[in-house]
Amino acid sequence: MRLRRDLDHLESYVPGFQPVDDDWIKLNTNESPETSPAVLDALRDALDDRLRLYPDPLSSELRDRIGRRHALDPDRVIVGNGSDDVLNLLVRVVCDPGDHVVAPVPSYSLYPVLSAIRGCQIVEVPLGENFALPVRQMASARGKLTFVASPNNPAGTHYPADQIRLLAGQCNVLVVDEAYVEFADADRVDLLGEFPNLCIVRSLSKAFGLAGLRLGYGLAAPELIEPLLRVKDSYNVGRLAQFAGVAALDDTEWAEAHWQRIRERREAFASKIQNRFGLRVYPSNANFVLVDCGPHDAAALQRKLENRRILVRRFDADARTANALRISIGRAAEMDAVLDALGEDLATTAAAVARESN
Amino acid sequence: MRLRRDLDHLESYVPGFQPVDDDWIKLNTNESPETSPAVLDALRDALDDRLRLYPDPLSSELRDRIGRRHALDPDRVIVGNGSDDVLNLLVRVVCDPGDHVVAPVPSYSLYPVLSAIRGCQIVEVPLGENFALPVRQMASARGKLTFVASPNNPAGTHYPADQIRLLAGQCNVLVVDEAYVEFADADRVDLLGEFPNLCIVRSLSKAFGLAGLRLGYGLAAPELIEPLLRVKDSYNVGRLAQFAGVAALDDTEWAEAHWQRIRERREAFASKIQNRFGLRVYPSNANFVLVDCGPHDAAALQRKLENRRILVRRFDADARTANALRISIGRAAEMDAVLDALGEDLATTAAAVARESN
Repeated sequence: MRLRRDLDHLESYVPGFQPVDDDWIKLNTNESPETSPAVLDALRDALDDRLRLYPDPLSSELRDRIGRRHALDPDRVIVGNGSDDVLNLLVRVVCDPGDHVVAPVPSYSLYPVLSAIRGCQIVEVPLGENFALPVRQMASARGKLTFVASPNNPAGTHYPADQIRLLAGQCNVLVVDEAYVEFADADRVDLLGEFPNLCIVRSLSKAFGLAGLRLGYGLAAPELIEPLLRVKDSYNVGRLAQFAGVAALDDTEWAEAHWQRIRERREAFASKIQNRFGLRVYPSNANFVLVDCGPHDAAALQRKLENRRILVRRFDADARTANALRISIGRAAEMDAVLDALGEDLATTAAAVARESN
Repeated sequence: MRLRRDLDHLESYVPGFQPVDDDWIKLNTNESPETSPAVLDALRDALDDRLRLYPDPLSSELRDRIGRRHALDPDRVIVGNGSDDVLNLLVRVVCDPGDHVVAPVPSYSLYPVLSAIRGCQIVEVPLGENFALPVRQMASARGKLTFVASPNNPAGTHYPADQIRLLAGQCNVLVVDEAYVEFADADRVDLLGEFPNLCIVRSLSKAFGLAGLRLGYGLAAPELIEPLLRVKDSYNVGRLAQFAGVAALDDTEWAEAHWQRIRERREAFASKIQNRFGLRVYPSNANFVLVDCGPHDAAALQRKLENRRILVRRFDADARTANALRISIGRAAEMDAVLDALGEDLATTAAAVARESN
């Protein structure tokens, strides 16, 4: 049995640990601590034997609703089975095998995975100091497709509109992945009017607490949306997801209050980490913070937190994140529990590192 | 903005019409007339704020359950966002651009679409008389990947195990698409033990009345399943779908009674079409029948049925199906309504054809 030739070179994306038990304080994959109650109510009403029927292949009602959210026509919207589906389609529609795909590192590690699956050459451009966007280097990397996550992962860095504009002006197709943008001050949807080669990708996983449902979307000029629609799986988004998406976007009151709560909790948590423990927290516009563990061993800390049934995430592929922990912003009580745990664990972890270095 | 070079040659799969209103007798896309009541109950219980959490990326519980259904280890199972997701992954994992993909025609028209998206060369081998499988021609077409739907669409022809065995022995990778097999006498899962290059694809859309949810799976040797898991979207199947899948497979009593009802209704409907109207109905092992309209104009008939709010499907790309109607097996009352409508419309349609040919 012969399979595709480059199969041995394909590595899969490694998602954060998803425990089966629910007695964890789970702050490792940036989920929201709540689901929109209106969505749950709406889904309860939608559960009937219409489930036997195929969904609308074009997700028309949901695309209308998304269009209204952003003051865009629905022909500028594609809905995906999670934003990963949209990112996957973008690589397959924009790129031929052999093309360059450009992405900064560290960032969402799915970009190189999708690039390899399409047989493309990934060009990873290291972020600058404080995870600044290397605009000039990225623009000169001759990408057929260029990815920027803003706010970026894992530090939560949000890049100024001017930098995105500069990049869009020099790239063939620029994808701005705004999976976390509801927790930031502003999005870049306005730039769509200036750049027909710009695609903005959004997710309902975090901002609307719907990670379990798989729902994301892309916004772009019709010239880019049309081929994405042509290549997507015909029924890529199920009935319940389409229904839930409309209900989620209708419940703006809950959503905006939720984003505000997460932002305030993030700032309070970051201050406490800095003030109590003297650790550096990178400025974040997302629903997580990256904590540099300084003299302490981040891997050991992560293990100790795990022993307390607290999950956080560490990225050891990049020197700047290898000794840091990314902590999602969960419920207030969960953040207090993390602070308490860190208070105890940091003392013993510092000692451990000191002993090891003797 | 440059997109992939072959974009103009890519055509999208054209799904059957999915009306928004529910006052249609909808027999055009082979949906089940019912959804498993146990699934609806289970989903109602599952609707809580765990929806905020990502699903299990490996669908472990559902893969276990599917494995038990077929007496296979879970490492021989991949779950997809509909069986289309699994078919898509198969093309991307088995084939390189330029490879041959072999499929009979007429059959599921997604196969050439997926082949083109991967940049492959589709080799379409015409089915023989009575839609018989052209085993020798297909085997000699040197496909990297070969598709057979059995029962096939649009006639419902189920191919003997010996033919599948012959083909599997001569193909590189053979995919047997069993989307409709629960309405047939037997499946070909037993052949998996003989052929590590065989993948059997199943769907919960028809057999379990869950088309709206998007749930399908593939069964194959671990050597083929492993790369499929590597290339799939990490969270390709949502929490509700995973949960519903387990509930559906647990409710064997409902499912088996449902399949039996559809089979009996199909045979009764086919007999009435033949006896009352003298039209040929191809022997079907699926939840639909293909009715050759004989001297009557199938396109005109389809329009007349549509005027009565009855949807059926016609495939005009192939000479043998262009003057036939594919009619899904729905509720008993719906099939009676179709028979009544056909009784009236056939009379006037015959006359119309006669006039036109003058």
